[in-house]
Amino acid sequence: MAYGDGIFETIRVDSGRVAFLQTHLARLKESAVFFQLLPKDFNWAEFCRELDNVIEKIHDGVLKIILVRKYQGRGYRYTTDAGSEIIMECYGGKIPFGWQLDPADIGICSTPCSINSMLAGHKHLNRMDSVLASGEVQEKGWDDGLMCCQTQVIEATAANVFVVQKNSILTPEISVAGVNGVVRRILVSEPSLPVREVPQLTLSDCQNAQALFLTNAAKIVWPVNSLTVNGRIIRYDLTNPTLERVISDFRNRLSC
Amino acid sequence: MAYGDGIFETIRVDSGRVAFLQTHLARLKESAVFFQLLPKDFNWAEFCRELDNVIEKIHDGVLKIILVRKYQGRGYRYTTDAGSEIIMECYGGKIPFGWQLDPADIGICSTPCSINSMLAGHKHLNRMDSVLASGEVQEKGWDDGLMCCQTQVIEATAANVFVVQKNSILTPEISVAGVNGVVRRILVSEPSLPVREVPQLTLSDCQNAQALFLTNAAKIVWPVNSLTVNGRIIRYDLTNPTLERVISDFRNRLSC
Repeated sequence: MAYGDGIFETIRVDSGRVAFLQTHLARLKESAVFFQLLPKDFNWAEFCRELDNVIEKIHDGVLKIILVRKYQGRGYRYTTDAGSEIIMECYGGKIPFGWQLDPADIGICSTPCSINSMLAGHKHLNRMDSVLASGEVQEKGWDDGLMCCQTQVIEATAANVFVVQKNSILTPEISVAGVNGVVRRILVSEPSLPVREVPQLTLSDCQNAQALFLTNAAKIVWPVNSLTVNGRIIRYDLTNPTLERVISDFRNRLSC
Repeated sequence: MAYGDGIFETIRVDSGRVAFLQTHLARLKESAVFFQLLPKDFNWAEFCRELDNVIEKIHDGVLKIILVRKYQGRGYRYTTDAGSEIIMECYGGKIPFGWQLDPADIGICSTPCSINSMLAGHKHLNRMDSVLASGEVQEKGWDDGLMCCQTQVIEATAANVFVVQKNSILTPEISVAGVNGVVRRILVSEPSLPVREVPQLTLSDCQNAQALFLTNAAKIVWPVNSLTVNGRIIRYDLTNPTLERVISDFRNRLSC
């Protein structure tokens, strides 16, 4: 796992049902091909059969699939025949949906989000920025924290961020930094929802929002209660109709 | 080694002599403290004694020290008592000094250098950009490749870059991207050499240079013969007196 040179997926399983498996697998495949992480003759059908066997054993929890390039020796150079390693980790235990949790109290991390247009979007393993930001979140006692590039908000440490302004839902484009999360992918491709990707989401967009919510593949949609900026606490409307519509949309998709 | 959340040092040993050990250890310590990678009561003296034992067994080669945060469970959150793991890897075999090799024929990588002001300078393990750029170098048959942020040159995939213009030696500041290499540290702190850190080193600075050289802890100083930019090949003066002065300075330091 040298140099964080790999990708991963974190997949929610509840009551034996896997949330958005096809979207996860599509992203894994897309990134594996992009980063040349697998031999050309890799058997995806066989991999999916093995995956099914693993999933059968999880009733509630999270399945993590990690795909890393194998290294032979020192340095960054790799041989295309070096192959890769697929690791599957299961973390059991029922995970509450975000909307069942207390809404999140979040802050702004001082660790910047790493910028690289070639890595942006992919769920790769170069996540030292997220780890350091997560350290800040723990130290401050927040539920999560926003990560920025200068004055632009990109994402939370382990979630995408969405801002409700009037009847629109805005989220930053993932073109130079950030992860294109699975729930985010579904949200931006859903024509019935007023989600719009913007080239730049500023901190004032967040401060002036009616509602704010976070998304990831484990908690799905997590409403934000408050955002602390330089000691000032901004509170959001937890009964905002647009936010409620997003939640009910995902409840329907997950039939819960 | 999840998330590339750690640091490393690559240390040259030849004929039982370790090159710039104190500078390596100072950087390792500095980054370990910065990233909170070690318990506060970590015994550096004991670590150095263990290191001495390892070094004694290498006659020629490279010693790699890797320091990674231990993880307990899923996600980016870590506990400060989780501790770290120190891995020492030895790669035997005499390594030629850069100036003993054929001078390098290099190109420009299309993989951008990751930007993060908090990670810049440190020799951390978030190196997927270097790995991808190294893939390009292999594919093109170059000896190394320059990595840029937009139009700014930052470094090579596994080396710092220095440009000789008239009697000056210029190298990019490592403030938002790149590794502050051990040989680079020595070069910029050497008052007798005309080395100047510049906020931005452009591709035209490289194209218009009299001489170009790369530095890293294994090869020390490696003169560049040619740089390919969009199919055009720029050749450099391999007998440039400023370059020769740098080489003789390092030959003296290493008494070789």
